[in-house]
Amino acid sequence: MRHDHLITSKQLSRADVETVLDRAAEIDADPTAVEDRHAGSLLGLLFFEPSTRTKMSFETAMKRLGGDVVDMGSIESSSVKKGETLADTVRVIEGYADALVLRHPKQGAATMASEFVDVPLLNAGDGAGHHPTQTLLDLYTIRQNAGLEDLTIGIMGDLKYGRTVHSLAYALTNFDARQHFVSPESLRLPREVVYDLHQAGNGAGIREHESLEEVLPSLDVLYVTRIQRERFPDENEYQKVAGEYQIDLETLEAADDDLTVMHPLPRVDEIAPEIDDTEYAAYFEQAHNGVPVRMALLDLLLSNGGDDDE
Amino acid sequence: MRHDHLITSKQLSRADVETVLDRAAEIDADPTAVEDRHAGSLLGLLFFEPSTRTKMSFETAMKRLGGDVVDMGSIESSSVKKGETLADTVRVIEGYADALVLRHPKQGAATMASEFVDVPLLNAGDGAGHHPTQTLLDLYTIRQNAGLEDLTIGIMGDLKYGRTVHSLAYALTNFDARQHFVSPESLRLPREVVYDLHQAGNGAGIREHESLEEVLPSLDVLYVTRIQRERFPDENEYQKVAGEYQIDLETLEAADDDLTVMHPLPRVDEIAPEIDDTEYAAYFEQAHNGVPVRMALLDLLLSNGGDDDE
Amino acid sequence: MRHDHLITSKQLSRADVETVLDRAAEIDADPTAVEDRHAGSLLGLLFFEPSTRTKMSFETAMKRLGGDVVDMGSIESSSVKKGETLADTVRVIEGYADALVLRHPKQGAATMASEFVDVPLLNAGDGAGHHPTQTLLDLYTIRQNAGLEDLTIGIMGDLKYGRTVHSLAYALTNFDARQHFVSPESLRLPREVVYDLHQAGNGAGIREHESLEEVLPSLDVLYVTRIQRERFPDENEYQKVAGEYQIDLETLEAADDDLTVMHPLPRVDEIAPEIDDTEYAAYFEQAHNGVPVRMALLDLLLSNGGDDDE
Repeated sequence: MRHDHLITSKQLSRADVETVLDRAAEIDADPTAVEDRHAGSLLGLLFFEPSTRTKMSFETAMKRLGGDVVDMGSIESSSVKKGETLADTVRVIEGYADALVLRHPKQGAATMASEFVDVPLLNAGDGAGHHPTQTLLDLYTIRQNAGLEDLTIGIMGDLKYGRTVHSLAYALTNFDARQHFVSPESLRLPREVVYDLHQAGNGAGIREHESLEEVLPSLDVLYVTRIQRERFPDENEYQKVAGEYQIDLETLEAADDDLTVMHPLPRVDEIAPEIDDTEYAAYFEQAHNGVPVRMALLDLLLSNGGDDDE
Repeated sequence: MRHDHLITSKQLSRADVETVLDRAAEIDADPTAVEDRHAGSLLGLLFFEPSTRTKMSFETAMKRLGGDVVDMGSIESSSVKKGETLADTVRVIEGYADALVLRHPKQGAATMASEFVDVPLLNAGDGAGHHPTQTLLDLYTIRQNAGLEDLTIGIMGDLKYGRTVHSLAYALTNFDARQHFVSPESLRLPREVVYDLHQAGNGAGIREHESLEEVLPSLDVLYVTRIQRERFPDENEYQKVAGEYQIDLETLEAADDDLTVMHPLPRVDEIAPEIDDTEYAAYFEQAHNGVPVRMALLDLLLSNGGDDDE
Repeated sequence: MRHDHLITSKQLSRADVETVLDRAAEIDADPTAVEDRHAGSLLGLLFFEPSTRTKMSFETAMKRLGGDVVDMGSIESSSVKKGETLADTVRVIEGYADALVLRHPKQGAATMASEFVDVPLLNAGDGAGHHPTQTLLDLYTIRQNAGLEDLTIGIMGDLKYGRTVHSLAYALTNFDARQHFVSPESLRLPREVVYDLHQAGNGAGIREHESLEEVLPSLDVLYVTRIQRERFPDENEYQKVAGEYQIDLETLEAADDDLTVMHPLPRVDEIAPEIDDTEYAAYFEQAHNGVPVRMALLDLLLSNGGDDDE
């Protein structure tokens, strides 16, 4: 890793991704080898928005490396309520920790914050912006299940607002994946994202669809995301759209037997529970992969630091 | 312990209880002997309801064994707000931890959740259901103060809604204790609990009373619980009932000098502060016993696991 | 340290302060020397009021000493909501921890609580009362930047309600500092604080001013505090007052080149960001100093304890 901060998946070259994924695989194979590796190191958690799995998996990752965390807690109990700027908050908390993880509702917050601190800062989601560690664990899960070479992936659901989807799509251009985007008209990928994907796409096929049916048989991976009720002014409209983008065993009859179904979770109704115990389902494994991938990332960033303990 | 999950005190045989209590006594006698015993292990905390002492004492217990915790945090900041099911939440968090502790407002939640996870799950209270680790620390406190053999115990207060009371009463049938239940008519033990106690009671005497007076002199232990204001539609009715089930030094003049007074805490007015510094009071000791008892339990469950590190 | 509890800066002699500050300097110079020093020790955090930096820096300090914390969490999720008294809460949590840190909205809460516990209790702020660990890190910052000998300090802003200011002012009487208090008429030091300072002042000069201008050139240190909007019934009145007590580069043209500007943070508009990167600014360093100073304090208190592990 040549980077002190991890703000967006766009900054990651194919080689960067492979470095993280290879390290994660090593750690997965023998977690006890690193269990004291960062003893005495502290990771500062700054979550200005709710999160369960991202926050818990960063915390788990740091503790599985022998380190610990200091958590700002909810913004209701913080100085933010007293009017403190983000720049001040991160400069104070930098003094407590060896690296920082930031989630913030405003796009660009991580970039701005990173300019004020000397310790590595990891973006754990900045509004509609980026969520690069989610992308890395998604790529790790794809590599384990379907491989990243010669990949055909379907990405379905809310493609308009999902930062997870945008981050993943950018990263997949590094691997010349064929990407099929399946969504209702009203939740299509933003035009600027499509433009960027084409720019970065070095030959990769980017296609958009309104129905899963036409592409399902060709897919190695189907990546499902949640369609959020609150995006729709009309409940009936939501019900109609959401119903069309749900997956059950009947849907998957048309799929390849080796299809891998992923979801960043939490899900609501997008994937029927009857799929959970089939070979298709990789979404719980995907959630669990957050730990080795974040361990790998933290290990690389903390070992890169001034004291060079590697 | 033959069990991977601890859901209810009903699943514990007399031998199981004694195994945990003996281990707790060993740990109490020499806590430093286990201070690194579960280094590297993580306990996942899932509290869907507020808790101070149960959560903190699990956390303390795990840390006193050299381990650490990962905490889901309040449900306000979690994926539950996004509509995630409990089954999904526990399957995700299972990936972060070596054992789970669950508190949930719905009766039966722990049983259901335990069916979805492979790591040991401990029920820390499921609605009006069970709270078996509270029962174990209650039994430990009774054993230290009055002994579990030939025990006469009075259990007083809100016997209708208190899961603590039901769990304890079931467990005491293992020890042939004489149990006197003292409550206002409106807060008597549920009939099904009484029935179950008689079924399990192998000769033990189960008696119900409306007044403490008639049984107090015969008691080795008086276990007081809080009468909750919110159970009463009428404030005057509450005041009248609550006032009758309060303990002070004058009340205890009729008691045996060796009487042990217990309370699961928090208390409001049920026990006068003047009792705190007397030989009767065991309720702070009881709260503190949560640590060695939960250490013993975690030690037994984690040592039972796949890698068999004992 | 001769004290088991730290409640107020008034209880600290000059020798006490120097013991803590010297230990903090040792730790700052070589933090790795103490990184396992209190392994196995637990610090109980009881914050009945929101706090970011005090709580996080106590947590960081304890973890940098190899120890860990158990946190009561927010009062919304605690037994306090069920009507438990502070005396009961601290007696329960005492059973989990080797020392306690308490922040509470009521003045005198720390003194009261300390009477119920046997482990060391540190006051992290009790309403308009005291905040002695803030004072110690302020003194440490002053000593590092300007020295505590022959000091001339200006303390500006809300001098009426700020416990930080009162604690610091008392402590500085130990060092015969010249103290200039600069505030609007409505936010002057309370008369009883001025009286106490004169009583304790052994010759030190205590002066009050409405304008910074007349004293700025003579200052070694300028300690700025936030003027809270909610103190003013009238928004216009607030704007007028707040505007007069703001510092920017133009203000500091009249100051000595070696002036050190401090602030307990969070700031709102009191200090212009253009000062952040100048030699004047010591407020982020001041925040970071919370860690070594609290490490020193915890080390002294925990090493003092019954088992005498020093």
